Amino acid sequence: MTFQDCFPIWDRLDADQQARILGNLAFRSVGKGTILHNGNADCTGLLLVKSGQLRAYILSDEGREITIYRLFDRDLCLLSASCIMRSIQFEVTIEAEKDTEIWVISPEVYQSLMEVSAPVANYTNELMASRFSEVMWLMEQVMWKSMDKRLAAFLLEEAAIEGTSALKITHETIANHLGSHREVVTRMLRYFQSEGMVRLSRGMVQLLDEEKLRRLQDDRA
Amino acid sequence: MTFQDCFPIWDRLDADQQARILGNLAFRSVGKGTILHNGNADCTGLLLVKSGQLRAYILSDEGREITIYRLFDRDLCLLSASCIMRSIQFEVTIEAEKDTEIWVISPEVYQSLMEVSAPVANYTNELMASRFSEVMWLMEQVMWKSMDKRLAAFLLEEAAIEGTSALKITHETIANHLGSHREVVTRMLRYFQSEGMVRLSRGMVQLLDEEKLRRLQDDRA
Repeated sequence: MTFQDCFPIWDRLDADQQARILGNLAFRSVGKGTILHNGNADCTGLLLVKSGQLRAYILSDEGREITIYRLFDRDLCLLSASCIMRSIQFEVTIEAEKDTEIWVISPEVYQSLMEVSAPVANYTNELMASRFSEVMWLMEQVMWKSMDKRLAAFLLEEAAIEGTSALKITHETIANHLGSHREVVTRMLRYFQSEGMVRLSRGMVQLLDEEKLRRLQDDRA
Repeated sequence: MTFQDCFPIWDRLDADQQARILGNLAFRSVGKGTILHNGNADCTGLLLVKSGQLRAYILSDEGREITIYRLFDRDLCLLSASCIMRSIQFEVTIEAEKDTEIWVISPEVYQSLMEVSAPVANYTNELMASRFSEVMWLMEQVMWKSMDKRLAAFLLEEAAIEGTSALKITHETIANHLGSHREVVTRMLRYFQSEGMVRLSRGMVQLLDEEKLRRLQDDRA
């Protein structure tokens, strides 16, 4: 799988533009847990995921985290190049959630293409609109959904991503995804366990009744 | 003040593009409380505020509201034309908060310009990045700030917008801005009153000690 295969608007660039991107392209292979982009301190560039998984999150002054979106194979991360857009006034951190291979597109080259190319600018627009939509979805969850429903939804999503109902994940990590505290997550997981929805063991959450978790997640009461 | 004065990239359009925008432009004068755009049911077009004030908010299934941003003179509302961007997957409602005069730019015309013009596409990008930033700011407030700090910040913002410390606003309206319940707002305002920060009367909140409200708002504890 080459960069050209994964970059969605490759065919809409002219030969010169293609050469400028390739001539300034970097490839990185990073281990799980690597911080790839750290707020506005970095002007990292656009990250195109070849394989693996990234997560974007925001941090509170006290070090609390909340995941705002995740990126999988062939996804492109724009906010790691927020330096090229002066109207982006917030900071996200990008972390590899698994061992990950990425291409890094030079922010200067991308910006210069975007300035002259309507297809590149419109593609950038669509990317931003997608991330904006994910954040709006999260806002609705945070505003109108109780934490038990959000936890049920997170466990189901995680099982779908991992392709298994036996999740290797700590309560601390779950709390960091949801913007909650470890104690709150632990208490709620114990309640889920008492209701037969999950089984807890060290560093592990096993989903036992996905149907019941789904009903809890969808319950509008 | 003409449309041409207020539309920021007017000079970057060619004569034909300018003519197409003007030929499909509508002007509306609406009263306070008018709903100008109602989620994805409408494809209203871009709204450029000549005078007045708009607010964009989201609604829960139960009818709760939270304000996501506000628009003032010369501001352009993009999300009322979200129909032209397929990656926008959320719904906002746009309401006139005061008597308001707006120009409505045809969504079809704008979309056709955006597709061929890098300046229009990049301007759209900057607009979206600004709104995205406002929502991220709100997300941080909602996640990490307690309601008393958010209420203090709202009262100070409102006083700045209105240019007076005597705010004509109901507790219900404040709750709808903040995504809270009227009872919660009332309880907190009474606490503010007991601390000498505000004086409450029917349909009115008078700020008495802005300095103290500011300290509360900024308090990181």
